[in-house]
Amino acid sequence: MAIEIERKFLVAGEAWREAAYQQKHFAQGYFNDSGRASVRVRIEDEAANLNIKAAVIGSARAEYEYEIPLPDAREMLASLCLTEPVEKTRYWVEHDGHTWEIDVFEGANAPLIVAEIELEAADETFTRPDWLGQEITDDKRYYNHALAFAPYRDWPAEPTA
Amino acid sequence: MAIEIERKFLVAGEAWREAAYQQKHFAQGYFNDSGRASVRVRIEDEAANLNIKAAVIGSARAEYEYEIPLPDAREMLASLCLTEPVEKTRYWVEHDGHTWEIDVFEGANAPLIVAEIELEAADETFTRPDWLGQEITDDKRYYNHALAFAPYRDWPAEPTA
Repeated sequence: MAIEIERKFLVAGEAWREAAYQQKHFAQGYFNDSGRASVRVRIEDEAANLNIKAAVIGSARAEYEYEIPLPDAREMLASLCLTEPVEKTRYWVEHDGHTWEIDVFEGANAPLIVAEIELEAADETFTRPDWLGQEITDDKRYYNHALAFAPYRDWPAEPTA
Repeated sequence: MAIEIERKFLVAGEAWREAAYQQKHFAQGYFNDSGRASVRVRIEDEAANLNIKAAVIGSARAEYEYEIPLPDAREMLASLCLTEPVEKTRYWVEHDGHTWEIDVFEGANAPLIVAEIELEAADETFTRPDWLGQEITDDKRYYNHALAFAPYRDWPAEPTA
């Protein structure tokens, strides 16, 4: 079984935009805030799916995803999810043999921008693009589920050094 | 839009069994205990589905159901739902022009037996079968979702008059 390792970073500046070769809009909401699995509805451009993911973090994290009709997903986001949808546009950028996914958040999570890279091994090296900021892989506040319930805009200001 | 009215009763005795013409086994579990919608996974004999139902009680209660692979549902019931599955065998019985669904609960909800009839209008009359017991339509403890979190076996004993 392939073990996927994802690392997540903040983004500094806009230089990545000229290299973006694809983009997609996401709107997603959650039916629960706790439990053994999160249940999410997501609209990806004009497609929609339900996703169930074990709350346990780890390589064997169970995940299930099913396509559903777009009108159903719109109704769920409008009236059945626990929070306002998390909305973002994802851009894809190639850099030195790796693909970066850059999520530009909207609404209550603007102006947050996050870049993610998927590696095949924990010790796999990659070249840091100039626009890459601080690593936030282990910061749970940046999980999309967390951003639904505690949007970026409401975070307390970071103390300045 | 058709408005469906369901009435639910306890069952006294076993006389209904000889009239049952069909049966199906159900195992179902829930991903959440509160929120704006319940999310349920259910195995019906060899088929499985995900169901999302608005928590609001009423005739316009939104409900969505999607078929999913049986092995997925088995894994979810075993490890991702919040409680042990609610298991029951449903029997169908015809009586004087109406169809009764009789749920015989198993495990932590045995020996509960509940009969349900679907009417097309609040004032539609029906003949009470001899085996019909007390009406429990408005008793939330008998909702399947409630039985998952507070199984029948754990209910406090009713005071005897």
